[in-house]
Amino acid sequence: MHDRKRSGFKTRTRVDDARERLLGAAAPHGRTARVDLAQADARTLAERVTAPNPVPGYDRAAMDGWAVRAADTFGASARSPAVLRVAGEAENDDPVGPSDAVRVHTGSALPEGADAVVMIEETEQVGDELEVFDAVTERENVGDADEDVAAGQTLFEAGHRLRPSDLGLLKSVGLARVPVFEQPTVGVVPTGEELVQFDPQPGEVIETNGLTVSSLVSRWGGVATYRDVVTDDFEALRAAIQRDLTKDVVVTTGGSSVGERDLLPEVIDELGEVLVHGVALKPGHPVALGVVEETPVVSLPGYPVACIVNAVQFLRPLLKHVGGTDCPPLPTQEARLARKVSSEPGTRTFARVEVQEEEGERIALPTRTSGSGILSSVALADGWVVVPESREGIPEGEQVAVEDWEWSA
Amino acid sequence: MHDRKRSGFKTRTRVDDARERLLGAAAPHGRTARVDLAQADARTLAERVTAPNPVPGYDRAAMDGWAVRAADTFGASARSPAVLRVAGEAENDDPVGPSDAVRVHTGSALPEGADAVVMIEETEQVGDELEVFDAVTERENVGDADEDVAAGQTLFEAGHRLRPSDLGLLKSVGLARVPVFEQPTVGVVPTGEELVQFDPQPGEVIETNGLTVSSLVSRWGGVATYRDVVTDDFEALRAAIQRDLTKDVVVTTGGSSVGERDLLPEVIDELGEVLVHGVALKPGHPVALGVVEETPVVSLPGYPVACIVNAVQFLRPLLKHVGGTDCPPLPTQEARLARKVSSEPGTRTFARVEVQEEEGERIALPTRTSGSGILSSVALADGWVVVPESREGIPEGEQVAVEDWEWSA
Repeated sequence: MHDRKRSGFKTRTRVDDARERLLGAAAPHGRTARVDLAQADARTLAERVTAPNPVPGYDRAAMDGWAVRAADTFGASARSPAVLRVAGEAENDDPVGPSDAVRVHTGSALPEGADAVVMIEETEQVGDELEVFDAVTERENVGDADEDVAAGQTLFEAGHRLRPSDLGLLKSVGLARVPVFEQPTVGVVPTGEELVQFDPQPGEVIETNGLTVSSLVSRWGGVATYRDVVTDDFEALRAAIQRDLTKDVVVTTGGSSVGERDLLPEVIDELGEVLVHGVALKPGHPVALGVVEETPVVSLPGYPVACIVNAVQFLRPLLKHVGGTDCPPLPTQEARLARKVSSEPGTRTFARVEVQEEEGERIALPTRTSGSGILSSVALADGWVVVPESREGIPEGEQVAVEDWEWSA
Repeated sequence: MHDRKRSGFKTRTRVDDARERLLGAAAPHGRTARVDLAQADARTLAERVTAPNPVPGYDRAAMDGWAVRAADTFGASARSPAVLRVAGEAENDDPVGPSDAVRVHTGSALPEGADAVVMIEETEQVGDELEVFDAVTERENVGDADEDVAAGQTLFEAGHRLRPSDLGLLKSVGLARVPVFEQPTVGVVPTGEELVQFDPQPGEVIETNGLTVSSLVSRWGGVATYRDVVTDDFEALRAAIQRDLTKDVVVTTGGSSVGERDLLPEVIDELGEVLVHGVALKPGHPVALGVVEETPVVSLPGYPVACIVNAVQFLRPLLKHVGGTDCPPLPTQEARLARKVSSEPGTRTFARVEVQEEEGERIALPTRTSGSGILSSVALADGWVVVPESREGIPEGEQVAVEDWEWSA
């Protein structure tokens, strides 16, 4: 609805430069909490974590056999076996005295008094006696008390995003809770006088961007507050941004271009600083990135596809940065491009594709690439192919990496 | 601790066959709920969803220009323009009467009375008059009321796992809630007389598998109940499984092999049926899969790495199946194998690797591949390389796909 959109941007900042400016102006929030391991999955560690205790924490038999005192076996051979007394089982906590042998299994705690394990194959039990056919040295076939993890060993650095197996490792060293960064908070403010929540009349449009962005924020580890629609009014928009300056990040949708009703860049400029307005990406160049009283403000365009493309490029890394962790690359899958994709050199282009299997081969089938208003083209796509600034399109048949932007991380 | 483990399995079922048997014996639970779109992310649709309303729901201007009655422009040309009356703006709900022209922007609702749009370039406004230099036909430059989505159009089939952009699409057609399958419930039962929750004495081990598996269940869309440790006692184990037959799935950890204290296969056999015991995979062949009173029971081995490998192979697809959706393939990244990986033909091997960047190239560095007890080898790995049954190892330098088993989906 804004006829100056296409021609209105004098310059368009490159995607990487725009992201760098945004992250450079935003500080990690640094607030921490201690959470139970059972609640810590996918959270970000706020401190380096070292092991308070070793694992397993005690010497173990490394073989099935007999725990002994090594000195009792010195000189033993097949011809002249050492003869020990069968003194019980490690599982029964039987200790090993002089000339005793106690039955152990791989992983058993080494019984008190023992300092080595004779492999079962090197022995023969005869009644209450055990013949040992080979000498063992001290610590032979014994696993150290810190074999898996040493006390004081660094397990994870600050900024590490915890995974289920990490929780097991942390528990194994005796930890019950871990220090993590709080999840970043995000105010999500949909804007546009045409937006309604339901039952649109001619000229009205149902609000969808705020809902989608709020769900993406959750997937990316943030806590979204999905605000009511704000109309295209300078004062109303200013108040809406000011209300959410208590959040770690403010995101708006709509009104980010250069038309008469695109007020967000002006509002941000009045309240703080516009870092970037207009980015060399497609679809979705009319994005504005700014900062108000140290709170980063991401003003996403209102066209649904443009909104999502920019959210992935700027909001996702911003949330990670503010939340104290690195932004992991999105997963990709290789596929053969079924039709050529066009792009302008100098512009990073995100071409939505459907991925299909054809005769055992993965094919990437471009969906509608022109227009950014068609929500179904992104909802029904499996991912997108990123055409870098250095290229002018990608020819049919090329092997491409399809990026799936909706994974949780 | 079980010396018959290595030799005890007469046959080992192939991974794919074992999975097929398990899924074949488990039915989708079929329970449904209606949830608000704001809570529906990552949930699975229980029914096909069609659009109750079209999008946008009204005719729109497809160009910046003037809404007119096409008949008023018939015969117009640059030499002999049609002259219309400037009658207002679409944004003000001004209607189009005979010989009227109302200003429209791309996306504006077509004003009442208009049936076409003249592009701005084909006009010139002179005071209150508009000269039109080219005729338009009915519906020219007009977008249909169902241009984005038609009423009745199928948006998603039952079984579709919802993503943030899907939520936007569903909202845009006027839906507020959607029918989804309930999240599958899982009883997670760690077993083993050596297990304690903290402060292990010699011979004792801190319980970690139940915690890790519970977190994985959450990542995979299930709701885990993490039970207290159950000791290696037939009656206690039987009671523990019976208690959780109200769940959609029962998972145990430990006691799944063929040693004296490996009682789970026997318990399952007494209560129901063991479908598979022993699978041709490494690490982790001593897994048991069964069904008790129509509830699938997955008995995972107690060695931490073996536990995780089997959870990913069997529990993840089972949860998806029971929850009514397909199991998406795990994301992979290509890397060059830095050292050879060994495997036995006939056995599917999961070789944990760390992924590193070296001079712009991604390198997969195998971590300890022998032994399945070292939790740190999996917690500190970035993924694993799957060596199929048909191969005997993978040589150094080969390009491999590193599977990341901890993504949420």
